[in-house]
Amino acid sequence: MALLIDRIGELVTNEPGCCARGHLTTLKDAAVVTEADKIVWVGRSADAPAADHRLDADGRAVLPGFVDSHSHLVFAGDRASEFAARMAGEPYTGGGIRTTVAATRAATDDQLREAAGRLRAEALRQGTTTIEIKSGYGLSVADEARSLRIARELSEETTFLGAHVVPAEYASRVDDYVSLVCGPMLHAATPYARWIDVFCETGAFDADHARAILTVGKAAGLGVRVHANQLGPGPGVQLAVELDAASADHCTHLTDADVEALAGMWTVATLLPGAEFSTRSPYPDARRLLDAGATVALATDCNPGSSYTSSMPFCIALAVREMRMTPAEAVWAATAGGARALRRDDIGVIAPGKRADLIVLDAPSYLHLAYRPGVPLISDVVHNGVKL
Amino acid sequence: MALLIDRIGELVTNEPGCCARGHLTTLKDAAVVTEADKIVWVGRSADAPAADHRLDADGRAVLPGFVDSHSHLVFAGDRASEFAARMAGEPYTGGGIRTTVAATRAATDDQLREAAGRLRAEALRQGTTTIEIKSGYGLSVADEARSLRIARELSEETTFLGAHVVPAEYASRVDDYVSLVCGPMLHAATPYARWIDVFCETGAFDADHARAILTVGKAAGLGVRVHANQLGPGPGVQLAVELDAASADHCTHLTDADVEALAGMWTVATLLPGAEFSTRSPYPDARRLLDAGATVALATDCNPGSSYTSSMPFCIALAVREMRMTPAEAVWAATAGGARALRRDDIGVIAPGKRADLIVLDAPSYLHLAYRPGVPLISDVVHNGVKL
Ligand SMILES: [Zn+2]
Ligand SMILES: [Zn+2]
Repeated sequence: MALLIDRIGELVTNEPGCCARGHLTTLKDAAVVTEADKIVWVGRSADAPAADHRLDADGRAVLPGFVDSHSHLVFAGDRASEFAARMAGEPYTGGGIRTTVAATRAATDDQLREAAGRLRAEALRQGTTTIEIKSGYGLSVADEARSLRIARELSEETTFLGAHVVPAEYASRVDDYVSLVCGPMLHAATPYARWIDVFCETGAFDADHARAILTVGKAAGLGVRVHANQLGPGPGVQLAVELDAASADHCTHLTDADVEALAGMWTVATLLPGAEFSTRSPYPDARRLLDAGATVALATDCNPGSSYTSSMPFCIALAVREMRMTPAEAVWAATAGGARALRRDDIGVIAPGKRADLIVLDAPSYLHLAYRPGVPLISDVVHNGVKL
Repeated sequence: MALLIDRIGELVTNEPGCCARGHLTTLKDAAVVTEADKIVWVGRSADAPAADHRLDADGRAVLPGFVDSHSHLVFAGDRASEFAARMAGEPYTGGGIRTTVAATRAATDDQLREAAGRLRAEALRQGTTTIEIKSGYGLSVADEARSLRIARELSEETTFLGAHVVPAEYASRVDDYVSLVCGPMLHAATPYARWIDVFCETGAFDADHARAILTVGKAAGLGVRVHANQLGPGPGVQLAVELDAASADHCTHLTDADVEALAGMWTVATLLPGAEFSTRSPYPDARRLLDAGATVALATDCNPGSSYTSSMPFCIALAVREMRMTPAEAVWAATAGGARALRRDDIGVIAPGKRADLIVLDAPSYLHLAYRPGVPLISDVVHNGVKL
């Protein structure tokens, strides 16, 4: 099936072949033609060929679908009361992440599938055409494997995060848990995962454990990503660069050496401002990273504890307000930047041969994603060439 | 037509008859019946009477529709590039508000009607069942009158804001402009307006001019509202209380005496955090006002210059993150608080005899409005008893 989207007021192309860091590029009065799941033509609206189906953009903006390169969608339950207590500055005596682990383990496959599927659909309605999904609330061989099996039904970008936290039953035996993760858990996860990730942070996994886990994961054929430097300075970013990780995620507390390590490297700094919003924490310094020449991506970190948003437009608005990214930098980071963080060159751009993932805004320019915060501006989504 | 909404997991009632400041009240396992444009029954879901139509809430939360008591929807054009320049910290040489005045004056009635109608519909889809709409981009007798005429087609809550800024052609003749506002402009506006408002701020209208304008407006039968203390300390709040204004709006820079003046009074402090978000300004201190016993409302300030959001859920999330309101206080402020700011007791609450304005969330609790920032959570809207 061929689809023509014409009379596009502003087309964000993110022209490929540009520098690693990338720049937002746009065309006025443009049109795009898709055929099956690919973009086959991009040009002036007046020159557009006919197609079986037509979507008249009527002057609105068209962008590549958002690439959300960091989410935790497979879990059961929510933690709304923990959130409310945190916002009120009250001590919360609940179990935090372990609450979600217990609920996830107790859920049936169908319950997990339904809950994750709802969030995936919610994200897609908001323009997220690619979403990375991590495990990490199972923390047993069977529960990590089924989390990834369910994640794989929803996305090809799945990440094994057995090393999310040390589960309660291993609290005094961290080495044993790391052995489990590196051995039988990895073995059970590998068929369903493209990536491996570790929460490298004080209170979770130290540099040696993280290196051990990521190294065996890499040897098993998985790509590397790291939860790094979220809650304080630490070894995560350096470890990510050392292991050629596709992405170091969070990057909230960076030393000059960390920034230098990321500058010009293939390890993307993925910023997750939804987490700082929902935990009332200081935001990462995107400006410093960009000015140093690092590649920056934006993602939601969608999870029930620290960032229960699935909205990439919300992350863009926060990036502009709180992290001093320009709207162009933020939109690039939420599309092409996310693609770099997943080492993909077929998404996040609009050009012939690329994936037919596009969104039509109810606005004349991508600027409105930051200029109109909180407003649902996604009027049409085309995913794999199919209009939702 | 009677409508039954049953199996409500959490019903926010905002029980009337409580103190002026008000508290959020909720019921579990509840049902509501509406008849024509009124709520006629509220109770346990198991006891609910039958009705012609049924909406099964299936455990979701139901709230009073949002009451957005401060918006500027009647204008032409947008100011996206001014926004982008401001966010980049660049000087902007455009005309600011005067750009919008020029575009508004140049627009036809139908263009203004269409643009305002789109924003009204956008707000309604996001759960705003009552919206106050101000004039203030006409600034001539004819253009203020037609702005209010168009606003009145969309809302019964219309506000004459001829004293928004001094238009360019009166720059050196402020007294003359005030006379125009108090005379022929007020006369032309009165048939279409319920309220009068003044932007009382350095660079706009001082206390004497503001008092003069509000006093003649009041004598003409209009209720009083004041744009007060947004950009710096000033006389706005005191003037609002002196004139028994329904609301003092913004309240960003308050002295102890201002807070004391608002405490326990019938003048509501309406906070507009979208403006601080979009201008990267410090937020008002809601906690201080609440702790002093003032009544707080939340509104969007939707306008193309300083706060181009129509999203009450976004304002709730900001109020919790940035102004240390609890989710309960923020949701009350966005519903019952807005009603107080409009001196209405038929909206913002769910009780027999009240207006049948309700929203169904795609979530089990009102907490999710803050817990899930940026996510479009409004799944159904009932406005005047009619389901959208
Ligand atoms: Zn994460
Ligand atoms: Zn205003």
